[in-house]
Amino acid sequence: MNIVEKTHGTHGNERINAFSDGVFAIVITLLVLELKVPEHLPEGGLLALLPSLLPSLLGHVISFVLVGMFWVGHHNMFLGIKRHDRALLWLNNFFLLAIATMPFFAGLLAHHTTDQASMIAYALNLIVAGVFLWMTWRHATQKRRLVSAEMPAAVVSHVERRILMAPVLCIFAIISTFINPSISQFIFVLIALLYIFPNPLDLLHHHKMKSSQSPTSAPQQ
Amino acid sequence: MNIVEKTHGTHGNERINAFSDGVFAIVITLLVLELKVPEHLPEGGLLALLPSLLPSLLGHVISFVLVGMFWVGHHNMFLGIKRHDRALLWLNNFFLLAIATMPFFAGLLAHHTTDQASMIAYALNLIVAGVFLWMTWRHATQKRRLVSAEMPAAVVSHVERRILMAPVLCIFAIISTFINPSISQFIFVLIALLYIFPNPLDLLHHHKMKSSQSPTSAPQQ
Amino acid sequence: MNIVEKTHGTHGNERINAFSDGVFAIVITLLVLELKVPEHLPEGGLLALLPSLLPSLLGHVISFVLVGMFWVGHHNMFLGIKRHDRALLWLNNFFLLAIATMPFFAGLLAHHTTDQASMIAYALNLIVAGVFLWMTWRHATQKRRLVSAEMPAAVVSHVERRILMAPVLCIFAIISTFINPSISQFIFVLIALLYIFPNPLDLLHHHKMKSSQSPTSAPQQ
Amino acid sequence: MNIVEKTHGTHGNERINAFSDGVFAIVITLLVLELKVPEHLPEGGLLALLPSLLPSLLGHVISFVLVGMFWVGHHNMFLGIKRHDRALLWLNNFFLLAIATMPFFAGLLAHHTTDQASMIAYALNLIVAGVFLWMTWRHATQKRRLVSAEMPAAVVSHVERRILMAPVLCIFAIISTFINPSISQFIFVLIALLYIFPNPLDLLHHHKMKSSQSPTSAPQQ
Repeated sequence: MNIVEKTHGTHGNERINAFSDGVFAIVITLLVLELKVPEHLPEGGLLALLPSLLPSLLGHVISFVLVGMFWVGHHNMFLGIKRHDRALLWLNNFFLLAIATMPFFAGLLAHHTTDQASMIAYALNLIVAGVFLWMTWRHATQKRRLVSAEMPAAVVSHVERRILMAPVLCIFAIISTFINPSISQFIFVLIALLYIFPNPLDLLHHHKMKSSQSPTSAPQQ
Repeated sequence: MNIVEKTHGTHGNERINAFSDGVFAIVITLLVLELKVPEHLPEGGLLALLPSLLPSLLGHVISFVLVGMFWVGHHNMFLGIKRHDRALLWLNNFFLLAIATMPFFAGLLAHHTTDQASMIAYALNLIVAGVFLWMTWRHATQKRRLVSAEMPAAVVSHVERRILMAPVLCIFAIISTFINPSISQFIFVLIALLYIFPNPLDLLHHHKMKSSQSPTSAPQQ
Repeated sequence: MNIVEKTHGTHGNERINAFSDGVFAIVITLLVLELKVPEHLPEGGLLALLPSLLPSLLGHVISFVLVGMFWVGHHNMFLGIKRHDRALLWLNNFFLLAIATMPFFAGLLAHHTTDQASMIAYALNLIVAGVFLWMTWRHATQKRRLVSAEMPAAVVSHVERRILMAPVLCIFAIISTFINPSISQFIFVLIALLYIFPNPLDLLHHHKMKSSQSPTSAPQQ
Repeated sequence: MNIVEKTHGTHGNERINAFSDGVFAIVITLLVLELKVPEHLPEGGLLALLPSLLPSLLGHVISFVLVGMFWVGHHNMFLGIKRHDRALLWLNNFFLLAIATMPFFAGLLAHHTTDQASMIAYALNLIVAGVFLWMTWRHATQKRRLVSAEMPAAVVSHVERRILMAPVLCIFAIISTFINPSISQFIFVLIALLYIFPNPLDLLHHHKMKSSQSPTSAPQQ
C-alpha cells in the first residue's frame, strides 16, 4: 500500500506515536495487574503482609522505570525522525512487541526471583527491545535518511551509543547470573538510574558537542 | 538523547499528553475490573445481592472521581506548560506510576474496608501522586521556566496551593484512621467534592486576580 | 486551576477527545475479556460448543454496537463543541464513568440473561450514559455557549432529541421487563439499529433543515 | 447528528485514528495476557518449561504480526482517506470489532492447536476483519469519494487487491484444515511474511505505476 504514501506525499508520524504511546500506556499499567490484592488478610492486617508485599512493589517500580526509560528513548528518537516507510513501521512494531512482552517476563521474575532462566529471559527481553530500537534508529538515519538532512553525524552516533548502553549492560547481567544473581539485580537498577539521571559520559560528550557547534537559539533544556 | 532535542529546537508536549491520557484512560477503566460479576445469583436474583454490591459500586465511583480529579489537574497544568526536558518527562513518569497503582490500592481498600493499614496505603498513594504533580509544576515554573514567560507569579503559586490541597487533606485522613476511620472516608469524599466544584477559597482568589489584571479577550470560562 | 485556562486564552478539546477515545477503546476491548476461552473442549471439538458460545458472541456484538453508538455520538457532538470549562470536563468524566461500567453490566446480563434486575441494571447504565451525554450538550449549548456562535437553534434541539432517543427507549425496555423480557431484548437491538442506520424521522428533519437553509459549500456527506 | 457535521463543514479523521490506534494498542497488548506466568516451576527451573512455553510464544508472535499487519493497512489506507461520514464511522467500528475479538480466537487456537473448528474460527475472524477493511476502502473511494479527488483509479484498485490478498489466503487456510492442518498454519505464517516484506507482485505493479506517472517531488520511500 506504499503507493498511497507515494501519491499523497509527505506525512507525519502522528499515528506511529499514538499507537506506540497506547502500547506503552497499557504495558505500564498492566504491570500493576501483577500486584495481586490479597483475598484474606492475616491477623495484624495489611501491616503483617508488608514484608512479603514490599519486594513485589519494588520489582514493580523497577519494571515501571525500565518501560519508562524505553518510552523516553522512543519519544526522544522520534523527535528527530521526520518521515516513515513500511520498514520503519515494522521495525517499530517489533520494538513494541518486545515492550508488550515485558509484563510477562517481569511477572515471571517477580514470581521466581531465584530462578536463573527467568533472570536471563528478562534480560533477553530488554536486549531485544533495545536492539529493535537501535535498528529503527539505524534505518532512519543511515539507509533511508528519514531524519532531517541537517542532523549532524555526531548526534546520530551519540544517540546510537546511548541506545546500545542498555543491551550491553544486559549482556553483563546475563553473565552475572552464572556468578552471583545479586550482581544481575544490581545491574538492572543501575540501568534504570543511568537513564533517569544524565550520566557523566553523556555530559562530557554533550560538552564537546556544544563547543564544536555554533550557539543555537533553542531553549536551554 | 537531549542533544536531539537541542538540535531540533522547540517541540510540543503532545506525546507527554497522549501517553498520560492513555495511562489515565486505562486506570479509570481498570477500576471496573475490581467489580466482579457474581458467578451465581442467590434466590431473588441480583436484587438480593444489591446490599452487598452497592458499597463496592460506591467505592468505585469515589476512586473514579479521584482519578478524574488528577486528570483534570494534569490537563489544566499542561495547558500552561509549553516545553519539556528530560527531568519533566521523568517527574511525569513517576506521577503516572502513582496513578497506575491506584487500582491496586483501591482494590485493597474495597476488599478490606476496616483495615487501617489499607486506608493509610490508599492515602499514601494519593499523597505520592499529588507530590509528583506538585514537583512537576515546581520544576516547570521555577528551576527551568518551561512555561510561558508571561505567566504571573500569582498564578504559579495559586496552582501550587490547589495541587497541595489534596495531599494535605490526605495527611489528615491518615491521622483520622487512628481516631475514627469514618472521618477518613469522609475526607476522601470531601477531596473529591472540593475538586469537582469550585470552592469558595478558589473563587475568592479568582476574584482578586481578576480585579488586579487588565481584562483579556479570552472567552468567559 | 481555571486561572491558568484564563491566562492562556483559548485552547482546543484535543485532550478531552484523546482521554475519551482511550476509555472507549479500552471498554470496547474489555468486552472481549467477557468471552472466556474454554479450558477443555468436549468430544467433537469447538463445533460441539458452538450452541452455547453463539449467544455469548451475539451479546458481545450488541454491547459492542451500543458502545460504538456512544462513541459516534460523542465524536459528532464534540465536532460542534469548540471550547471547554471545568464543568464540561466533569460532565464528560461522569459520562465516561458510565461508559467504563458497561463491561460490568454487559457481563452481568451475559451470565444471567433471565434475571430481571440484571436487565434493568443494564438499561439504567445506558440511561445514565445518555443523560450525561445530554447534560454535556445542554451545558455546552445553553448555559455557557461553548459551541460556535453560528450554530442554529434547530441543530441544537435536533441533536438533543437524537441523544434522548436512547434513554427514552431504555425506559420502555425497563417497563417491558415486567411484561416480557424478550421485548426488552428486542428494544436493545432496536436502539443499536436506529443509531447505525439513519432513521426516517432523522431524514425528514434533515430534509426540512436543508430547505430552510441556504446551500453551504460543505462536502455532501 | 450528521447535521452538525454539515453545519461545521470539513473536519479530519483524527478521532477515528485515535480511537482505532487505541483499540489496536490494547488488542496487541492483550495477546500477552494469553501468556500465563507459571505459578510453580518444575525442577530445573524455567529451562525445563521452555519446550512447552516456546510454541505459545511463537503463536503469540504470529498473532502479534497479524494484528500489526492490519494496523499498517489501516494506517496506510487512512493516509488516503480525507473525510468521513456516518457510514465510514460504522464500517470502521465493525472492523475494530473484528480486531478486538482476535485475542479471543488467538487464545482459542493457542489452547487447542489441533482442533479444526478453532483453526477455522481463527481464519474466519481474519476474513471478517479483511472484508470490513475492504468495505471501508470501497465506501471511501467509490460511493462517496471521501478520498482526494486526484487519487488515480490504479491506486484505488491496487490497494483493493492488496487488502483482499489476506482474506483470499484465509479461505485457502480453511480448505486446508480438511486436508492437513500444517498447511493452514503455514498459510498464516505466509500471510504475515507477505505483508511485512514487499512482495514481488507488489513491486512489479509499483514499477509499472511509476513509469506511467510523471515523477513527483514526494520523498523516495
